[in-house]
Amino acid sequence: MAGPQCCTVLVTGANRGIGLELVTRFLKQPNPPKMVFATCRDPEGPKGQELRNMASKHSNLKILPLEATDPASVEAAAKKAEAHLAGCGLNLLINNAGIMPPCSLESITAKDMLDVYNINAVGPMLVTKAFLPLLKKAAHASQQKGMSCGKAAIVNMSTILASIEKTPETYFFMPVVSYRCSKAALNMLTKCQSMGYKDEGILCTAIHPGWVKTELGSDKADITVGESVNGIMKVLGNISEKQHGVLVTWEGNILPW
Amino acid sequence: MAGPQCCTVLVTGANRGIGLELVTRFLKQPNPPKMVFATCRDPEGPKGQELRNMASKHSNLKILPLEATDPASVEAAAKKAEAHLAGCGLNLLINNAGIMPPCSLESITAKDMLDVYNINAVGPMLVTKAFLPLLKKAAHASQQKGMSCGKAAIVNMSTILASIEKTPETYFFMPVVSYRCSKAALNMLTKCQSMGYKDEGILCTAIHPGWVKTELGSDKADITVGESVNGIMKVLGNISEKQHGVLVTWEGNILPW
Repeated sequence: MAGPQCCTVLVTGANRGIGLELVTRFLKQPNPPKMVFATCRDPEGPKGQELRNMASKHSNLKILPLEATDPASVEAAAKKAEAHLAGCGLNLLINNAGIMPPCSLESITAKDMLDVYNINAVGPMLVTKAFLPLLKKAAHASQQKGMSCGKAAIVNMSTILASIEKTPETYFFMPVVSYRCSKAALNMLTKCQSMGYKDEGILCTAIHPGWVKTELGSDKADITVGESVNGIMKVLGNISEKQHGVLVTWEGNILPW
Repeated sequence: MAGPQCCTVLVTGANRGIGLELVTRFLKQPNPPKMVFATCRDPEGPKGQELRNMASKHSNLKILPLEATDPASVEAAAKKAEAHLAGCGLNLLINNAGIMPPCSLESITAKDMLDVYNINAVGPMLVTKAFLPLLKKAAHASQQKGMSCGKAAIVNMSTILASIEKTPETYFFMPVVSYRCSKAALNMLTKCQSMGYKDEGILCTAIHPGWVKTELGSDKADITVGESVNGIMKVLGNISEKQHGVLVTWEGNILPW
């Protein structure tokens, strides 16, 4: 199965949808990571059941509680991951947690905009900042030249709906204004990270997973979670400097901002 | 003096910098607007002195208190403007209020990101929503074909620093990560507004005012407030359908997202 060869990987929002499928695929790789961190808000609750089932079969899966909008929770998760890693770095951080409530120009409120921004843009900033020392450690320890997900990478789950250029093609079908604004900001954060972390050798990429049949994407969507994650794993296995600071689709195509 | 021929105009953040200069220029037009609304947070305080001096000389200048992040304050300002307008609409809304605190990838906090987003992106959403009925009224009352600032327009003050595409050219000089993210979101909001309000005939444009010597831009900047506003007034006088849903500079050039 195609995919990046990471020693260690962390996925946020890993208890459902694309996050859960990514964790599953990493564990099923012929040469799986030494450690897969799956984070979600409440791993002990009913929504963490599937992850707990998986962890009972895979000793390399570590489930960590992480509420991406709470700096203390994010810091605590980073400390736990560091202890598990016992001196190793983190190769790949996938900021996948996100929400997409319905929201039009007519219905939008200040609370909508702030809540969605907090989860979709502030969360990835906090998580990246907290795990940066572990990403740097992986980058510095690696013998690989150039950039890759196997060395050190930050992958932010974005969307074609965050492409301002593409908005005329998608707007009336799915306005979701608060979501679009938050993810356009996440694209900017990705670009800033690509500038700031380039000298560290950390690959920074935003990815559009397709319109996926999940709780977030609804059952009217184009592709299944399996199809999306097939594509994403292939993309993660192939991206390098060329995809540093860009928005790339699950099929490997670059989207305009 | 070049500029749009508006019957009524409203400028937020009008007590200093570009906002104050815009108000001054509108009042000095050979055929000035029947009504210029200048809003700021505390028009009665020391920071409102210049506006109060101007209002004592210009009966067509109305100063309104407006805190763009407070829905109740925004609604109250819209009600007051409606009473002043006495059945007329609002031709031009300039969402100019904004902040740009220093902020790097190292120093950034969740509070930074949320506060700046609240003022720079949520504020323009709230203000536009509250004044939309008056903008629609102006659009419907107008005999003009096509779109213009003289008919009905929403102009969001953006920045070249919000261009994700241009970030490599500007990042190390001025990282301001929280500002960039908030203004990238504002660009997306502008695009969504351009989609949603097109059928109403309301022009929606984001504008980059240049790097201006103001409290926000610092005294190291390229151009004076006067030079910037000269350009902006000319741009506002000329923009039409072609600049609907785009980011345009104070010199009239279109920037990539």
